[in-house]
Amino acid sequence: MKLNWGLIGGGEGSQIGPAHRLGARVDGLYEFVAGALDADPARGSAYAQNLGVAPDRAYGDWREMLDGERGRPDRIDLVTVATPNATHYQIAKAFVEAGIAVLCEKPMTMTVEEAEDLARTVERTKIPFAVNYGYSGYPLVRHMRAMAARGDLGKVRLVKAEFAHGFHADAADADNPRVRWRYDPAQIGASAQFADCGIHALQMASYVLGQHPLQLSADFISGVSSRTLEDDAFVNFRMEGGATLRLWTSSIAVGRMHGLNLQVFGEKGGLRWAQEWPNQLYWTPVGGRTEIIERGAPNLSPEADRASRVTIGHAEGMPLAFANIYADLAETIRAGKEGRAPKREASQYPTVEDGLRSMAAIAAAVESAKRGGAWVDARPPMRR
Amino acid sequence: MKLNWGLIGGGEGSQIGPAHRLGARVDGLYEFVAGALDADPARGSAYAQNLGVAPDRAYGDWREMLDGERGRPDRIDLVTVATPNATHYQIAKAFVEAGIAVLCEKPMTMTVEEAEDLARTVERTKIPFAVNYGYSGYPLVRHMRAMAARGDLGKVRLVKAEFAHGFHADAADADNPRVRWRYDPAQIGASAQFADCGIHALQMASYVLGQHPLQLSADFISGVSSRTLEDDAFVNFRMEGGATLRLWTSSIAVGRMHGLNLQVFGEKGGLRWAQEWPNQLYWTPVGGRTEIIERGAPNLSPEADRASRVTIGHAEGMPLAFANIYADLAETIRAGKEGRAPKREASQYPTVEDGLRSMAAIAAAVESAKRGGAWVDARPPMRR
Amino acid sequence: MKLNWGLIGGGEGSQIGPAHRLGARVDGLYEFVAGALDADPARGSAYAQNLGVAPDRAYGDWREMLDGERGRPDRIDLVTVATPNATHYQIAKAFVEAGIAVLCEKPMTMTVEEAEDLARTVERTKIPFAVNYGYSGYPLVRHMRAMAARGDLGKVRLVKAEFAHGFHADAADADNPRVRWRYDPAQIGASAQFADCGIHALQMASYVLGQHPLQLSADFISGVSSRTLEDDAFVNFRMEGGATLRLWTSSIAVGRMHGLNLQVFGEKGGLRWAQEWPNQLYWTPVGGRTEIIERGAPNLSPEADRASRVTIGHAEGMPLAFANIYADLAETIRAGKEGRAPKREASQYPTVEDGLRSMAAIAAAVESAKRGGAWVDARPPMRR
Amino acid sequence: MKLNWGLIGGGEGSQIGPAHRLGARVDGLYEFVAGALDADPARGSAYAQNLGVAPDRAYGDWREMLDGERGRPDRIDLVTVATPNATHYQIAKAFVEAGIAVLCEKPMTMTVEEAEDLARTVERTKIPFAVNYGYSGYPLVRHMRAMAARGDLGKVRLVKAEFAHGFHADAADADNPRVRWRYDPAQIGASAQFADCGIHALQMASYVLGQHPLQLSADFISGVSSRTLEDDAFVNFRMEGGATLRLWTSSIAVGRMHGLNLQVFGEKGGLRWAQEWPNQLYWTPVGGRTEIIERGAPNLSPEADRASRVTIGHAEGMPLAFANIYADLAETIRAGKEGRAPKREASQYPTVEDGLRSMAAIAAAVESAKRGGAWVDARPPMRR
Repeated sequence: MKLNWGLIGGGEGSQIGPAHRLGARVDGLYEFVAGALDADPARGSAYAQNLGVAPDRAYGDWREMLDGERGRPDRIDLVTVATPNATHYQIAKAFVEAGIAVLCEKPMTMTVEEAEDLARTVERTKIPFAVNYGYSGYPLVRHMRAMAARGDLGKVRLVKAEFAHGFHADAADADNPRVRWRYDPAQIGASAQFADCGIHALQMASYVLGQHPLQLSADFISGVSSRTLEDDAFVNFRMEGGATLRLWTSSIAVGRMHGLNLQVFGEKGGLRWAQEWPNQLYWTPVGGRTEIIERGAPNLSPEADRASRVTIGHAEGMPLAFANIYADLAETIRAGKEGRAPKREASQYPTVEDGLRSMAAIAAAVESAKRGGAWVDARPPMRR
Repeated sequence: MKLNWGLIGGGEGSQIGPAHRLGARVDGLYEFVAGALDADPARGSAYAQNLGVAPDRAYGDWREMLDGERGRPDRIDLVTVATPNATHYQIAKAFVEAGIAVLCEKPMTMTVEEAEDLARTVERTKIPFAVNYGYSGYPLVRHMRAMAARGDLGKVRLVKAEFAHGFHADAADADNPRVRWRYDPAQIGASAQFADCGIHALQMASYVLGQHPLQLSADFISGVSSRTLEDDAFVNFRMEGGATLRLWTSSIAVGRMHGLNLQVFGEKGGLRWAQEWPNQLYWTPVGGRTEIIERGAPNLSPEADRASRVTIGHAEGMPLAFANIYADLAETIRAGKEGRAPKREASQYPTVEDGLRSMAAIAAAVESAKRGGAWVDARPPMRR
Repeated sequence: MKLNWGLIGGGEGSQIGPAHRLGARVDGLYEFVAGALDADPARGSAYAQNLGVAPDRAYGDWREMLDGERGRPDRIDLVTVATPNATHYQIAKAFVEAGIAVLCEKPMTMTVEEAEDLARTVERTKIPFAVNYGYSGYPLVRHMRAMAARGDLGKVRLVKAEFAHGFHADAADADNPRVRWRYDPAQIGASAQFADCGIHALQMASYVLGQHPLQLSADFISGVSSRTLEDDAFVNFRMEGGATLRLWTSSIAVGRMHGLNLQVFGEKGGLRWAQEWPNQLYWTPVGGRTEIIERGAPNLSPEADRASRVTIGHAEGMPLAFANIYADLAETIRAGKEGRAPKREASQYPTVEDGLRSMAAIAAAVESAKRGGAWVDARPPMRR
Repeated sequence: MKLNWGLIGGGEGSQIGPAHRLGARVDGLYEFVAGALDADPARGSAYAQNLGVAPDRAYGDWREMLDGERGRPDRIDLVTVATPNATHYQIAKAFVEAGIAVLCEKPMTMTVEEAEDLARTVERTKIPFAVNYGYSGYPLVRHMRAMAARGDLGKVRLVKAEFAHGFHADAADADNPRVRWRYDPAQIGASAQFADCGIHALQMASYVLGQHPLQLSADFISGVSSRTLEDDAFVNFRMEGGATLRLWTSSIAVGRMHGLNLQVFGEKGGLRWAQEWPNQLYWTPVGGRTEIIERGAPNLSPEADRASRVTIGHAEGMPLAFANIYADLAETIRAGKEGRAPKREASQYPTVEDGLRSMAAIAAAVESAKRGGAWVDARPPMRR
């Protein structure tokens, strides 16, 4: 039996809506049965019906949807929250409290306080909750995590993470509304590029390491001088487990197309991976030769194997990584229904803790950047 | 409204079944409503029901399915034929004659005669018919085709195509049943590696060029000496439009993971693309610098744009290429229902003509290889 | 006529001696006529004679060499100083004051004060003086510099420079004398990895940009915990022309073989180059496609053309880059003898100013790292 | 003591002259003491003197040089023959018979008969004789050869060799005299691209394998239709040791800059190497992961180690490969003078046998191409 899935936000013309519907559809694990897709209730309902949602579950807004679903015997098992950022917190919290699993777009909240509150809510209710750091779904990202966890790298000393692209480098384009809002503090908050992209690199590094940030020192610049928020940032982190993370993010790095990549250097070896060519992982044991680990190769790790769908040598890409988050949640929800523990290799989705840590890191980076790169505590208060 | 989709073959444990179900599911264009999934009727029916097919449409075999579907008002719009090779011809032909669109696994038939008969049937009935050369679905493959068609390359002089991997190089593994059948003439016919992989390279070259083979000269070897059929082949082609195609295929090229790639050299410029890194295409105008064309870049071609799902810089992979074949067929079927022409940029799926040409090329290559590389006519008799 | 060349240091068993002799020999511009190659006078003299130097010019030490050469009509035109670091300053200064051109190994001096004194001496005497930042000799590095100078990039906003390798990552090897001295403050001074490798990346960035550092903020770590000096550093710079430079250097980045590379991002486009694959340069104009610029391609720049020796498509490497420094000096010395200006495209060697700036940057980075990454002035006092 | 070196051909304005002088100079093993550099005696003599050759050894032509050198106590130890192709044979033979070692440019001769005669002369006289297949000097090419020889690959089944570039693709440029002569049978003989570039690929394959060609089947085309000789060729070989070699060469492959590369597939593993990125070699053991072998890594092979000059991670290029041929000859000549065997790792230069086999292969390929790809004997008659 498929699980029932609902979507909030992601209406007609949005980019993220189709991505979520695709992610939820890839493995045939969910039926799309309910939606509140648009700020305009009539448009949202019409679009949902157009996508095959029954009229009575094509809701006008999220509150209506929560009320409507709450009482149904066939109520949704999972809701995806893909609304404007400022609304994530209240919607996600409301569904968690109603006992419905949530996949929340990033940023999870607008403030650290909200993030802490949401984290406490999830801890208390034990409802499955994921934050959509979709790059965590790549098979070889999961394999790096498994290698780190099983000790292949020894103690990790240093991580280099980048998410640097060049799509906002054109000063002539800076006033283009499609770009401008991304650097407008009124719409975006106190950080632009670090909060938007850098945070993916931080989450990936934390995810692979199994370590959260302890302290950080940030340098923000506005390469396009008309901007008040940063379009390029460098942040050094001390991680809780002792590693140093050096993180660069940029939107003015002309010639870089996406630019999310990770290098992990431990006592016993080093790893190198890049999102644009995600099917190869480079591993060098200390004193040995660099080896190319291919996605789909035999004997990788259960985590990588579960996340792969096609045989070795065939390219896999981002939409399937995304789908892995949905697949993990499906296993987790099913396990809950069946009163068993979910499979370990499916318990790999980014959690409310990732969301919480991200919000704390953004706040800390903004503060550090303002204070000329001073080292500041990067932890949320409730984790100090 | 979704189209109704049925699957023949692809039962429990098969690799190709999940790939087709994934391909059909990605865009939410089809409902999987009917199946005859297994040579064992009871197993096939049980598995189909397990996958959500209604009991009365979980058929015991393809004939039962044809009878069952033929009369239904909600009969299937498309059937995928993923049965053992020797059965493709009769099943595909029967469904075409019943007026049902077909996506047929390769090889389309076992003989050139069968292929000609099927081609004639499709021409007569005008039923949509695709052969599953799934690599044709990659956005940048379609862009190469568009570039060639619109004249960017000038007259094409030379094409270099490869599909060379190394997964059957282990002589110790040659008796492994999972490998051995691939080189057994009784199961496979007169060609192993060329018919299995080389033909993809030929189809891609023909697809991009818009030219079919005229003559060929083939050299087959058995690198693992216990094999009677070739595990490595080189074939030179003269194409109908004047280009020469040089095609290499291998399963003993240790260190190559997949190895499907294409280079096209024309009067005005050259192209280079590789399946393992499908999101970049290298283009060099004569006298100019090599440029990197990224999947998802603005202003490529309608054919490439239609086939892309995520923004530039995000990796896309094989399963989405595969899904593009399904999306093309959906548009074609819908257009037929609506009495209009399908969109040009969706009329990009590999056709019965590709299947026919492939069968003729295999037969010709086998003959040429036997005759020491003599040049032989590569066309099917009905196209001479 | 060949120029007369002398070498100080670089005795038997040294790595740097053969590299200099190779560099000086490649173009046949110099005759190796004088040397003081070893701390042990007898060994040094014997080795020099073994290498073809006449007995009366196979000196026991540098002072003897200075005295011996000073009065000769055929005295050396250029001396290379490749002695232990602590002696560079006095030797280089003495030869400059004797009117002999100098190629000085890096670090040019041990302190900023010495560097300033040497810079003043060179300015006063106008004797040709180069510091051996040999990577400056690569044709495509020179082409990047020419592109920046002629405005192809517009105003440069951001530079990313790395020199990160993994050859000192093995903790078990940290006590190996061949490695240990590199992290011993008594032998090396206050900085290890930044002063040794990072400084190459800084020099290259400054060289390409035509901008010197203004301020910096540094983070040093000792990834191998037994070390007192840094084996990994990150330094942010504000450059005098307004660009930000982000510089990473490491010797614990396992899997990276050399790791010197540069990315330059301007208003109009971006560049990417790596020392390990030095014959390709990637250039992306804003809004355009990435283009691959090949060493040896027609119509690059006079600076790149002069520095290339073989035709396009043939790999060139480090020894020829090194030789370009010698070739530049030869042209400069000859021009001086002939009372004319040297060719502009030969006036590309790293100068005493580079040496001076480097020393100031090292001192500043050490101070900043001690002060938790505080921003400090990176200029030598005499340039403030 | 340096060896005495003479050059014939390579006069002012030639490309090959500077390359040889550079190659001979790199290691300081030779003194350039004699030359007959130009068809015009006065020009040749003036140019040689300009390059530092004494007036009495700046000869007007090669016969004068042979006479002049023959009797001298300090006569040349090695002569390089870099004259127009048609003269190689007689000059090389004359110097061999005078007891002077020869480095002969390719093609060694114009006919198989001449090549056989020269091979017999060298066999009889035992004078060191090399043909300038300069790519043989790359450290990792030598390492491939060592790996094959010591059995790392097991029996080699298949080799894929390419030397395909695109610099003669412009039809508008085909009448340019700098290009046209290369396709003019009157100047070049019966083969253009195969004899010019393909032969390097054949020599490299033979060199690495330690196997010579037995039979071949060739397909030649003229992609630029105004040409009478081929600008693109494909040749299949059966090698004497049982391997199949598939060789592609082209000058119309737009976008390829040089395009010499080699893939070797054996029972135990596969190798991949490319001239444009010569410092990495890819090695995949059967059933294992691909490993990257870096030039300069420890514990490669004596052959590779001898041919490397700078430490791992620093690019080395073609001029140093070239210099390795000179270094090998120097060791061989010295060993002869000293009455000892040369070091095995220096006995790696391409020999008269390579030259002989090349001439036979060219003749055979031309014949096969004319006969529609018929298999023909590729051996010189004296080796049948």
